[in-house]
Amino acid sequence: MSLDTARGVYVIAPTPFHDDGRVDDASIDRMTDFFRAAGCTGITVLGQMGEAPKLDAAEAIAIARRVIGRAGLPVVVGVTAPGFAAMRSLAREVMDAGAAGVMIAPPNTLRTDDQIAGYYRSAVEAVGTDVPFVIQDYPLTFSVVMTPAVIRRIVQENPSCRMLKHEDWPGLEKISALRGFERDGSMRHISILTGNGGLFLDFELERGADGAMTGYCFPDMLADLVRLSAEGRRDAAHDLFDAHLPLIRYEQQQGVGLAVRKYVLMRRGVIDSEAQRQPGARLGAAARAEVDYLLARLARTDPRARVG
Amino acid sequence: MSLDTARGVYVIAPTPFHDDGRVDDASIDRMTDFFRAAGCTGITVLGQMGEAPKLDAAEAIAIARRVIGRAGLPVVVGVTAPGFAAMRSLAREVMDAGAAGVMIAPPNTLRTDDQIAGYYRSAVEAVGTDVPFVIQDYPLTFSVVMTPAVIRRIVQENPSCRMLKHEDWPGLEKISALRGFERDGSMRHISILTGNGGLFLDFELERGADGAMTGYCFPDMLADLVRLSAEGRRDAAHDLFDAHLPLIRYEQQQGVGLAVRKYVLMRRGVIDSEAQRQPGARLGAAARAEVDYLLARLARTDPRARVG
Amino acid sequence: MSLDTARGVYVIAPTPFHDDGRVDDASIDRMTDFFRAAGCTGITVLGQMGEAPKLDAAEAIAIARRVIGRAGLPVVVGVTAPGFAAMRSLAREVMDAGAAGVMIAPPNTLRTDDQIAGYYRSAVEAVGTDVPFVIQDYPLTFSVVMTPAVIRRIVQENPSCRMLKHEDWPGLEKISALRGFERDGSMRHISILTGNGGLFLDFELERGADGAMTGYCFPDMLADLVRLSAEGRRDAAHDLFDAHLPLIRYEQQQGVGLAVRKYVLMRRGVIDSEAQRQPGARLGAAARAEVDYLLARLARTDPRARVG
Amino acid sequence: MSLDTARGVYVIAPTPFHDDGRVDDASIDRMTDFFRAAGCTGITVLGQMGEAPKLDAAEAIAIARRVIGRAGLPVVVGVTAPGFAAMRSLAREVMDAGAAGVMIAPPNTLRTDDQIAGYYRSAVEAVGTDVPFVIQDYPLTFSVVMTPAVIRRIVQENPSCRMLKHEDWPGLEKISALRGFERDGSMRHISILTGNGGLFLDFELERGADGAMTGYCFPDMLADLVRLSAEGRRDAAHDLFDAHLPLIRYEQQQGVGLAVRKYVLMRRGVIDSEAQRQPGARLGAAARAEVDYLLARLARTDPRARVG
Repeated sequence: MSLDTARGVYVIAPTPFHDDGRVDDASIDRMTDFFRAAGCTGITVLGQMGEAPKLDAAEAIAIARRVIGRAGLPVVVGVTAPGFAAMRSLAREVMDAGAAGVMIAPPNTLRTDDQIAGYYRSAVEAVGTDVPFVIQDYPLTFSVVMTPAVIRRIVQENPSCRMLKHEDWPGLEKISALRGFERDGSMRHISILTGNGGLFLDFELERGADGAMTGYCFPDMLADLVRLSAEGRRDAAHDLFDAHLPLIRYEQQQGVGLAVRKYVLMRRGVIDSEAQRQPGARLGAAARAEVDYLLARLARTDPRARVG
Repeated sequence: MSLDTARGVYVIAPTPFHDDGRVDDASIDRMTDFFRAAGCTGITVLGQMGEAPKLDAAEAIAIARRVIGRAGLPVVVGVTAPGFAAMRSLAREVMDAGAAGVMIAPPNTLRTDDQIAGYYRSAVEAVGTDVPFVIQDYPLTFSVVMTPAVIRRIVQENPSCRMLKHEDWPGLEKISALRGFERDGSMRHISILTGNGGLFLDFELERGADGAMTGYCFPDMLADLVRLSAEGRRDAAHDLFDAHLPLIRYEQQQGVGLAVRKYVLMRRGVIDSEAQRQPGARLGAAARAEVDYLLARLARTDPRARVG
Repeated sequence: MSLDTARGVYVIAPTPFHDDGRVDDASIDRMTDFFRAAGCTGITVLGQMGEAPKLDAAEAIAIARRVIGRAGLPVVVGVTAPGFAAMRSLAREVMDAGAAGVMIAPPNTLRTDDQIAGYYRSAVEAVGTDVPFVIQDYPLTFSVVMTPAVIRRIVQENPSCRMLKHEDWPGLEKISALRGFERDGSMRHISILTGNGGLFLDFELERGADGAMTGYCFPDMLADLVRLSAEGRRDAAHDLFDAHLPLIRYEQQQGVGLAVRKYVLMRRGVIDSEAQRQPGARLGAAARAEVDYLLARLARTDPRARVG
Repeated sequence: MSLDTARGVYVIAPTPFHDDGRVDDASIDRMTDFFRAAGCTGITVLGQMGEAPKLDAAEAIAIARRVIGRAGLPVVVGVTAPGFAAMRSLAREVMDAGAAGVMIAPPNTLRTDDQIAGYYRSAVEAVGTDVPFVIQDYPLTFSVVMTPAVIRRIVQENPSCRMLKHEDWPGLEKISALRGFERDGSMRHISILTGNGGLFLDFELERGADGAMTGYCFPDMLADLVRLSAEGRRDAAHDLFDAHLPLIRYEQQQGVGLAVRKYVLMRRGVIDSEAQRQPGARLGAAARAEVDYLLARLARTDPRARVG
């Protein structure tokens, strides 16, 4: 399948580590199987929340290969790098290994519209014009602000652009604007999957997003939500979403979020350890108890939250 | 009463405008009365969400005087300014008019611990050491990161520091750290009221916050929540909070938030117009319908949300 | 005369204070006379280096009036403010007092091309479409990056735009690009005066700048340089420039620069005191000795540098 | 020799490329020989101006090995990386190859004093406590502001810290403060070499810097300057410096600077091509002519500037 028609949940995979910091292959396998069983339609590895910058080059490639080989789902690989040589090396390796495409975030030095469009042209030249790619639009972290018109420009200038990981905040109007560009014929269709931990997924779907690309610790819920929304069962979709919102909100704390996510995935039996490589926030006792409390409350309506 | 023992809700007041941009005095009066009736224990005017930077000096003073004269509650006035001369002028005017204290945010050029502490010393010298002041700690907007140790230093160096408007994100551990400083005797007690639109108020109260200083469009709910939490009714507090969370989350979108807030306050009959001065985001039709939908869902459990 | 045909040196005036922080009117008068005698063709007051943000509204207006009333030269007034209400008030006051135009810097929150162009449209609406204005393009301080195309857009969308204070770094290619736009007919002519303390004035003039808008402590040298360059005496222009470059470079240190500038102007007898309002860097003994050494070296070829 | 007693010029080496972007080994060798002959006391490779982020891991190691194997001088290797795994890999490789130490710049997300000190502790743990390292303090590029007290803290907490690449701007007072810490016994001695293209090297040496770590296209002049200054020949040192200042200033333009540097090194016969990898600024015809003009003027007093 082609990335530009992707729908559903491309879950952002964390990278499981052993407590001593080594990559945990067994947990990668279990997690990969879990994602497929959870109804995910794709997997994204080596993103920010996959602790990609903390891996060396050999580790990164090994992880991508492992997930691609096992998933039976399209796998998008983050190839964001400080320079194009490293980006090209990684992109070539993972495409050869069977990746469905690569994801590219802009460096935080970009400011003007021209700089942003120029960067993506150069990146495409570096990785190869035959490599499908995903724009990562995440101003809160990257400090790069892309207007809908700039995204359109990237899409139109680069035929290999197939998907937008939409993570602007706020971002509802941006989805509407992009879908408006498609309707007025000024932009071809791409898939729009949204991030931000799912915090606005309820309305993002209603605005025209095709699904989620985020790593919230209940990807199975995200998949259900996308399905309910696609079926037009609006109230049911919001009921499900609202039940999870207290935890979604808690997980969406910058810096702390990944610790919450790994903790819950560990509690759910998906990965063996919540360990992160340095630098990484650790949940203190109070935070741990708060997450447990949120899980207990959630379990009243969603049995998947019964974790112990 | 003294600000350092303040509890409850110091609501951040928006500034009501007529559709043509003039300050709307009648709405200010109605809003002031509403806040008192809603159970707020204080009011904060001329903050960022009060569109303070869009007012000229005379307007700012007039608004502060009007609210102070009518509220029958302690009023904190934002005096953040590009320089100390303007800060001093405004602070002196509003203290003479009966303000309970002033709030000071750091300029976004500050980086190091020494720069931050030095700034507050100079600001205190400018407004007068007899003027009670509130630290505004809002890194997402001001780009100034204050560690708990720096806040302690400001508190200890400046006896007139009485309160922290805590708006770090994430910020739960910061509250715990500051209350820990009080317990270990290294910092005197100050009031901690939290912002961020209330998005974490449920747990912030449990971590030791004294209440909220935020302008969520249901300050009456915030007051109830603080009361429930103080009474130790944890589940009831979370039930109330969770019902409002979809709307709290929606209102907490940067830039868009004030438009949502004013729209709901208008729907609730508190102010006449949702108008903002330029530059100001406007709710489009889709966003308006989304807010209406959230209000309708909320009204199933909270009758205050029945707005029309 | 109209600002769009301005040439020469529009010196950025510092604001002289007494040692106790009061505005020093006698020094303002002496400085104004000195600027005219030095060959300046205009004066700019209330800029960043004029410590404008440290003045309250009444002080700012009084200073602008005083210089306008005495100079016998066109006076541009900085009206940059946190909001449009304050900007309009100040602009109206100084235009009524006889200012030649106002200067507007962009707020540091602007990122995209559309945001920048939109801001200037709103600012023009606020101050009045009849008020000639100067764009201040100073990314190092304001963190706003304007491409030549965005500047052209502002110029073309706002007939009252008459001048660019060009202070990008590096900026030579930007001057060439803008003059290219004029040649290809896509942008009408505006005056381009350059800042950055004069650090690139030698080549900026050769690229098409009309002169300088900066406050280097030898504005008389800047005026000579513009004249030599206009006469086509390239080597003589560079010889003069190079003799001053060690001091220009020293004065162009961020933060420290104004202290150097005021110190030299005091040594030259132009102002009575080097005092700045808080926050303001002070020259230590070592820096003072370094400036004295540079002045002594400069005095070997430029007698104006004999200051004591 | 130990890095903490290093003096003179540790030249920042550019990475020579062929016009097609491949690494140019022959030019690396010629450049290495040139640096030794020019009087440099050390060489720094894989810095920002060495286009390190544009190299892939294998290229980076190969370049470091090549220079180390040939130089006959201590070689410092930049190992700044997005994460500690990649930093450790590179550091181990180059130390095994005979590097004198590594240089580490802080990531631009650091804000508070504690974050900065904590980062260096973690980095030291990652590369190994036995690996001598250089702090790179370059706020203009990295947006991380280190006070003298924070630098002292890093030095005192990490015995393997041996040198500061001082590149703050302005930075003279920082050198004085650090040397003051040594005198008052609160900080052990480290070598301080300065950057910023040499723009303040004249006074930096007088303030206590041990030399330069910068890549100005006349490292031979930098070596002479350090020698003259060490001999106490102040006026001669300044005369030499001032003659080069117009070009130093021109080369110190952000972004453009490396293009100027490579162009002059090519003109001097040190490297074969001025090519940079993408993204890289190119000198236009006007800039090229300006540099040629500056070289011609410089050649009147410094015969090394006769390049064609």
